[in-house]
Amino acid sequence: MSILIKNVLAVLEKDLDFSIEETSIYIENDIIADIGNADYNADVIIDGKNKLAIPGLINNHTHAYMSVFRNYADDLPFSQWLFDKILPIEDKLTGEDAYWGTMLGIMEMIKTGTTCFTDMYIYINETGRAVDEAGIRVCLSRGLVGTGSDEGGRRRIDEAKQEIEYWKGRGNGRISFIAAPHAPYTCDDKYLLNVIEFAKEYNLGINIHLSESRSEVVEIYDKYKCTPTEFLNKLGVFDLNTLAAHCVYLTDNDIDILAEKNVNVITCPVSNLKLGNGIAPITKLVDKGINVCLGTDGAASNNTLNLFKELQFVTLIHKGTEERADVISATEGLKFVTSNAAKALGLDDKIGKIKTGYKADIAILDIDKPQFYPRNNLLSALAYSTCGDEVCTVIVDGKILMKDNEFLTIDAEKVKYQISKIAERLLQ
Amino acid sequence: MSILIKNVLAVLEKDLDFSIEETSIYIENDIIADIGNADYNADVIIDGKNKLAIPGLINNHTHAYMSVFRNYADDLPFSQWLFDKILPIEDKLTGEDAYWGTMLGIMEMIKTGTTCFTDMYIYINETGRAVDEAGIRVCLSRGLVGTGSDEGGRRRIDEAKQEIEYWKGRGNGRISFIAAPHAPYTCDDKYLLNVIEFAKEYNLGINIHLSESRSEVVEIYDKYKCTPTEFLNKLGVFDLNTLAAHCVYLTDNDIDILAEKNVNVITCPVSNLKLGNGIAPITKLVDKGINVCLGTDGAASNNTLNLFKELQFVTLIHKGTEERADVISATEGLKFVTSNAAKALGLDDKIGKIKTGYKADIAILDIDKPQFYPRNNLLSALAYSTCGDEVCTVIVDGKILMKDNEFLTIDAEKVKYQISKIAERLLQ
Repeated sequence: MSILIKNVLAVLEKDLDFSIEETSIYIENDIIADIGNADYNADVIIDGKNKLAIPGLINNHTHAYMSVFRNYADDLPFSQWLFDKILPIEDKLTGEDAYWGTMLGIMEMIKTGTTCFTDMYIYINETGRAVDEAGIRVCLSRGLVGTGSDEGGRRRIDEAKQEIEYWKGRGNGRISFIAAPHAPYTCDDKYLLNVIEFAKEYNLGINIHLSESRSEVVEIYDKYKCTPTEFLNKLGVFDLNTLAAHCVYLTDNDIDILAEKNVNVITCPVSNLKLGNGIAPITKLVDKGINVCLGTDGAASNNTLNLFKELQFVTLIHKGTEERADVISATEGLKFVTSNAAKALGLDDKIGKIKTGYKADIAILDIDKPQFYPRNNLLSALAYSTCGDEVCTVIVDGKILMKDNEFLTIDAEKVKYQISKIAERLLQ
Repeated sequence: MSILIKNVLAVLEKDLDFSIEETSIYIENDIIADIGNADYNADVIIDGKNKLAIPGLINNHTHAYMSVFRNYADDLPFSQWLFDKILPIEDKLTGEDAYWGTMLGIMEMIKTGTTCFTDMYIYINETGRAVDEAGIRVCLSRGLVGTGSDEGGRRRIDEAKQEIEYWKGRGNGRISFIAAPHAPYTCDDKYLLNVIEFAKEYNLGINIHLSESRSEVVEIYDKYKCTPTEFLNKLGVFDLNTLAAHCVYLTDNDIDILAEKNVNVITCPVSNLKLGNGIAPITKLVDKGINVCLGTDGAASNNTLNLFKELQFVTLIHKGTEERADVISATEGLKFVTSNAAKALGLDDKIGKIKTGYKADIAILDIDKPQFYPRNNLLSALAYSTCGDEVCTVIVDGKILMKDNEFLTIDAEKVKYQISKIAERLLQ
């Protein structure tokens, strides 16, 4: 199978800087085989006129099947949101619901240019099944909560191991795993040591929520007399490649630790605002050289999985809070969802760039819309003028998942029907 | 001419609260003639299946033809943005450029559901010409800067008067006017008194930038020993119906003045962030009962005229800065761009609602997209899940301006061609 994207404007990355070039991209099987040469007899030819090809975006923190809860519990104080609304219906979710919920999440991600996501949740085999069928790329993790002594905590680690074993050799290499102790406030110190042991045994990195709320910091300080970051550091969590999501409340010492231990910070600006948690100190993290990435979090606290929305927020909000128009530029933000994100997953030699030899994970935007005129600067446009819905064609692993806004691997009508039924049942 | 939007989900407003109902909307000439009854032989029938009809949105602060500068000067410190980039090319703009720039702005506004906007700029007759041809609704204002003694200031008021005279009886009542002293820092006290006199003579309200930046507040304090709000209040500006844009830096006393004088505050969250100005105290203003509306500002500082983006920011950002998930709800934000906005313009008995007897200004969204599933709460969806591009059909004054994403009153190809040429010339 080969694809030629002919005479297209493309976002390339040269010498660590992005550039926009009119070129052609030739894909053979799952790989970008050539850039610049249009003389190929490809199986599929995509006309690049008025189109912009970008590296497929990477959403490094989400809970895809929370899409079922979209717009179900909004404008509520955090505890009411969580305890009165989300947890009770989360309890009612079945594996089948998780499958359809993931499919809905994947549809939205594809439609807005995301080709890879990092997920943490419960029914991981169902998430994997949806990913496998839909053809998107994923880093999966079973959310682990527990204490060093409880039966449930041990069982969850065992199930996580079984899930990893199950997916070995399946999914065409698009499915990888990471160990996910949920958060410092839901895993005690002994349990975290068990998770580290599990991660080392399976050669996994760590995916964890960190310092998401002010109350978490207070709770951990009361219990351990240190910050959540210091707590995880002392236990050795950061000796493994770690994706720390949120990181809203950090001391200067925390930031030094994250920098020294090369922790990847996944900021989720919309979720942090929506739940009233606050604004992460992203410019400080960038100044310290920390690898910052973006995540949407789940659709219950966002309420979309649209990384372009996230990109708008991360490039705009810090300008306002710091009263400096020159912080977190458009291109800086773009790295959060491409090369930085790939690096966090240890896949920076495979995805996150349109580059010969890289995996063919590409999103194509229709830029023949008012918001892209005049074309003064298309890199700026990606951060400040794109709403996400302009993505019309998406390729993952050399396979076209959406062409001219039509899903090729997902029965969209069936997903919408099933999701409507599930939501009706859950909210009864 | 009559239109029937048949069996559509519609955002109605009852007893000051929004509701979503499945209904039919019958339009005769420029008026919503009936809601609920589908038994009409209309000239045009629009199938409402999987569509959501909302009141056309109102953008109460913009400079439409700044769209020419979109993505031209981003991520720069404010003074460099203004003095090195924007002002020099603004100088080169011709009336013809303004016409095409306004057309581009109108295209983007229509595409994202805006049916009325309040504009302040220079080539007002050209803006009017574009509005007249495109069929959108506008409140126009010539930006006035000057001192009590300079010739230019007097001339600008005279030109503003001529523009008002010119448009009398034209534009089918879709074009209204407001007096626009640019800002406290660009109009001295004597000039502001001249503008008040002009406004009273023509029975106009006032459209002004207020307390947009920290430096403005310092400058006014140095000159007049009071805040910009106190300064305008002393001069009697607020005795006229005033639209005050931005209002980022306000003292508690300023807020009391704005509340007491029924000043309408037009918040432009994206622009305020993008230029590094900060975040307006919107929850305080709402708590004081001030009529808050939304504006996009010009595309040079945004970089879109998409009110759905603005709605996302205004409903999310204050939750984060105040660490309260229950402030500025989705429905509160919706009022900023509908009924509140109409009230600011003195048009609340004509626009801003889907209601029998009101002007037929309606935007229709295609909600058969992943971000609208499941349909747990479509009012929440408008604030938190809609990106703007879902708008597919727009009606203003009973006339269809866009149908199934096709512009019916604008030659879109010609606008894009002209805009590209203009941008090329200006940036040479």
